Amino acid sequence: MRPYVQRFPVGITMIGSQVAKIVESKNPNYPVGRRLVGHFGWRTHTIINPKVEESKSEEVNSRPYFLPNIGDLPPSLALGALGMPGNTAYFGLMEICKPKPGEVIVISGAAGAVGAHVGQIAKNLGLTVIGICGSDEKCKWLEELGFDATINYKTAPIAATLRKIAPQGIDCYFDNVGGDISTTVIYQMRLFGRIAVCGSISTYSADSSSLPKSTVLQPVILFNQLKMEGFIVRRWAKRWNEGIEQNLRWIREGKLHYRETVTKGFENMFDAFIGMLNGKNIGKAIVQV
Amino acid sequence: MRPYVQRFPVGITMIGSQVAKIVESKNPNYPVGRRLVGHFGWRTHTIINPKVEESKSEEVNSRPYFLPNIGDLPPSLALGALGMPGNTAYFGLMEICKPKPGEVIVISGAAGAVGAHVGQIAKNLGLTVIGICGSDEKCKWLEELGFDATINYKTAPIAATLRKIAPQGIDCYFDNVGGDISTTVIYQMRLFGRIAVCGSISTYSADSSSLPKSTVLQPVILFNQLKMEGFIVRRWAKRWNEGIEQNLRWIREGKLHYRETVTKGFENMFDAFIGMLNGKNIGKAIVQV
Repeated sequence: MRPYVQRFPVGITMIGSQVAKIVESKNPNYPVGRRLVGHFGWRTHTIINPKVEESKSEEVNSRPYFLPNIGDLPPSLALGALGMPGNTAYFGLMEICKPKPGEVIVISGAAGAVGAHVGQIAKNLGLTVIGICGSDEKCKWLEELGFDATINYKTAPIAATLRKIAPQGIDCYFDNVGGDISTTVIYQMRLFGRIAVCGSISTYSADSSSLPKSTVLQPVILFNQLKMEGFIVRRWAKRWNEGIEQNLRWIREGKLHYRETVTKGFENMFDAFIGMLNGKNIGKAIVQV
Repeated sequence: MRPYVQRFPVGITMIGSQVAKIVESKNPNYPVGRRLVGHFGWRTHTIINPKVEESKSEEVNSRPYFLPNIGDLPPSLALGALGMPGNTAYFGLMEICKPKPGEVIVISGAAGAVGAHVGQIAKNLGLTVIGICGSDEKCKWLEELGFDATINYKTAPIAATLRKIAPQGIDCYFDNVGGDISTTVIYQMRLFGRIAVCGSISTYSADSSSLPKSTVLQPVILFNQLKMEGFIVRRWAKRWNEGIEQNLRWIREGKLHYRETVTKGFENMFDAFIGMLNGKNIGKAIVQV
């Protein structure tokens, strides 16, 4: 979100997704009371013209859509496990990491909405799952979710711990952070390992002209024939419902758990956002307006 | 070659490929006078048992094979355009970069045996080809081969020059060098760009515990959804002849030119090797014993 904002002029509405409730309507297809999921930005009220929105072409999920039928589950899931983060986890893992049962996966930023979700899918698929995160509380939660091992990078040495937990090396790496943590993980990957670059939170504060440096990756990418690919989930826009339905099925079957860190009050949006970047949230950071 | 040697104990024969002539034989299938291409290492004479060699299982091209029928072309081509480097260029470009006509490719280490070969195939396929190398003499040769543009990285600023030559960005990058040159190129790549990591010569001198640092790649890999993959040509061992035959066809059609830097005398092997690492060769470095 922060790097996206850099592309827009200062002064525009901060970008962000909402589950909004229709409170007034002149269009019978959009009745009062129904909920819409959309990129409305940071605001309490939005006036939209569905025709204009529908004409927004290629990227299906950049248009608002009705909250899927998720029964008694909280509507906020459409911003988490049953929305963009859930689909990011699902497609990023399946399509970029292409995990196989018995393999070892490492996930950085593992206690975030995407990371925790990826780890649980990977467990469902029969992988050994190692999560890297920034507090003992997060480690504990990930272990409750079924992660085989966790590393609090603030207190444990990543390289030595990985060598102990996964002496045979790592097959898949789901990267949410970039920087030195990632370099350390990647240098312990095995032949034909796959790296999904989903986020790079360690670099978001840096100016693009003064990005941090880390050990070059080419030697290990070359000799272990690794594949590293960045992705934005919108590339699977046409398969959006497949992801939501699969994740909903896992939730219903008790195979996928979620957690939200809910901040109340629109006026606390800014603090919630900065807190998320500082690692204060566990699971999806939600602001309830 | 240097990093490979690090894996073996000091004192073993230096690894390396040869076109060897059979001078004595007790096996009628291997008559005196025929030539064999093999990984015999740095030596003037080799005694081998074909049965033992043939039992070397999985990696077909790690076994010696008879020099292919290349007519009046020099046998040393089996170590260059019609051998490992030629197949590295062919498979690395086709299978990892997956180039499309009209795209822009950048090649580093472009005046080496692999780089010059990749550029010519890419021209045959209808790409715009930009080569990065380390002398004006090399630039001149690459332009004679049909490269659309060249950059002498020792005298020209890579970033500014690329912005001028390829303002729309780069689709494919064939990387032979790693390090800062590669970082600069990769930060100018377009959406869905592909990077083939074929070599990392800028890091071969470093101890593995003190590799150089460069700007982290995750931000650009993420936002431009780039794919970066390392490869060793042996993964296409089963398609070895396909590569040789295709390259031979291009040579016969005048669409693929090669150059060799030939050093005479076994005793000059060491200097030839160090000279190659220092960029003294143009095209394939050959030692004629």
